[in-house]
Amino acid sequence: MNINKSLIIYSGGLDSTVLLHEYKSKIGLAVSFDYGSKHNKQEITFAKKNCQKLGIPHLVISLPFFSHFKSNLLQSGGEIPTGDYTEENMKSTVVPFRNGIMLSIAAGLAESNNLSAVLIANHGGDHSLYPDCRTTFIRAIDQATSLGTYNQVRVISPYSDMTKRDIALIGKNLNIDFSDTYSCYMGMEKHCGICGTCLERKEALNGFDTTNYVN
Amino acid sequence: MNINKSLIIYSGGLDSTVLLHEYKSKIGLAVSFDYGSKHNKQEITFAKKNCQKLGIPHLVISLPFFSHFKSNLLQSGGEIPTGDYTEENMKSTVVPFRNGIMLSIAAGLAESNNLSAVLIANHGGDHSLYPDCRTTFIRAIDQATSLGTYNQVRVISPYSDMTKRDIALIGKNLNIDFSDTYSCYMGMEKHCGICGTCLERKEALNGFDTTNYVN
Repeated sequence: MNINKSLIIYSGGLDSTVLLHEYKSKIGLAVSFDYGSKHNKQEITFAKKNCQKLGIPHLVISLPFFSHFKSNLLQSGGEIPTGDYTEENMKSTVVPFRNGIMLSIAAGLAESNNLSAVLIANHGGDHSLYPDCRTTFIRAIDQATSLGTYNQVRVISPYSDMTKRDIALIGKNLNIDFSDTYSCYMGMEKHCGICGTCLERKEALNGFDTTNYVN
Repeated sequence: MNINKSLIIYSGGLDSTVLLHEYKSKIGLAVSFDYGSKHNKQEITFAKKNCQKLGIPHLVISLPFFSHFKSNLLQSGGEIPTGDYTEENMKSTVVPFRNGIMLSIAAGLAESNNLSAVLIANHGGDHSLYPDCRTTFIRAIDQATSLGTYNQVRVISPYSDMTKRDIALIGKNLNIDFSDTYSCYMGMEKHCGICGTCLERKEALNGFDTTNYVN
C-alpha cells in the first residue's frame, strides 16, 4: 500500500510509541484521544513529549461523550481489576467500539488535512478481548473509511498480527526510551505494577534494562 | 434482519423524523449529534419535541472536535451556498466522514445500552455528493460495527435506495406534521427557502399543504 502522509492515533503507550518512531517519516499528524479513561492524562503527557522530540504536530481531542458509555476503564466506571490479563478479568475494561470510534474520527480528520491514511497500533494480544482490535474488524473499517471519503482514506495496522513482545523488540532496535511511555490502567503517576496492562508490559519488556521504565 | 430494540440517529430533519415515526415501536433511544453545524440547534429543538411526543428517550451528544474539520456547513466554516442542490454547489458543505463518525459513536452507545442496531435515514438523493451516504459505504460500516462489538450491532438504513420525495410520501401516510421538522442549512429560525436543502425540501413536499412548513 502506498502511504503518502498519514495520521497516527497516538496514545502515548508502549505500542503506539514504537509505531510513531517506526513510521515517523510518513506521519503528518499525531492525534491523542482523551476519552475519559483513568489513564488518558498520564499517557497524553508522554504523547506530547515524544511528538515534540520527533517534531511531529500533535493534536489532543477530548471526547466527553464517553461518559455515557459503561466501562471500568473510564473515570465514570468501577474499579480496575488487578492480576492476570485474562478475558474474564479484563472484560469490564472494554470500552464499546472505542477503536471504531477513534478510527472514524481519525479518518475524517485525515480527509480534512489531506492525509491519505490512519495508522493504529493494535496488536495480536488484544484480539481475544477486544472485538475492535481484530484483523477482520480492521479490514472492514478500512473498507468503510476508504468508501466513505473522497480521498479513500485507508486504515493501516502494521502490528495486527504481532505480540506486544514483538513490538517491544522493534522499539529496542530503534533505541526507544521506554521510560517515556505509559501503560498502566490505574492512571497514577507511576505504573502500579499489578493491573493486567502493567503485567503485560513487564512481560513484553522482560530481559531489557528496565531500571527506568517499569515501576 | 431481526431488529430487537434500536438506537436511531435523529437530527430533527424531514428524513429522520419520518424514520422515527415509522420505526417508533422498535426504537429504544434517539440520539442527536451537535457537531457544530449552523443548523444543529434548530434541528435539535424539533428532535426533542418529536421524541417527547412519541415518548422515546432522547440524548443530545456534543461533538466539539468537529471545529478541527473543514466544511462550510460548520459554524467554523465559510458561507452556505444558495441555489440548486448541485454537486459543485454543495461540495463545500460536505463534513468529512460525518456519517461514519456518527454511526461509530452510535454503535458504541448501542452496545453500551444493550440495543442491537443503529437506524439512519440516509437516502438515494445524497449518494452522489456524500460518499458516506452510499449503499456500499453503509454495507461496509455495517460489517465493521457487527465485527467490532460483542453484540454484533448492525447498521440499518431503510431509505438508502429511496428519494426524499418517497420519504415525504411515507411521512404523509403516517400523518406526520412536517412543521415540526427543520431542514435549512442556514440555521435561522425560519427556513431560508433558497439554500440547496430548502429547495430539495420544497421539491419533496410538492403538492402537500405546505402552509405551515415551508417558509
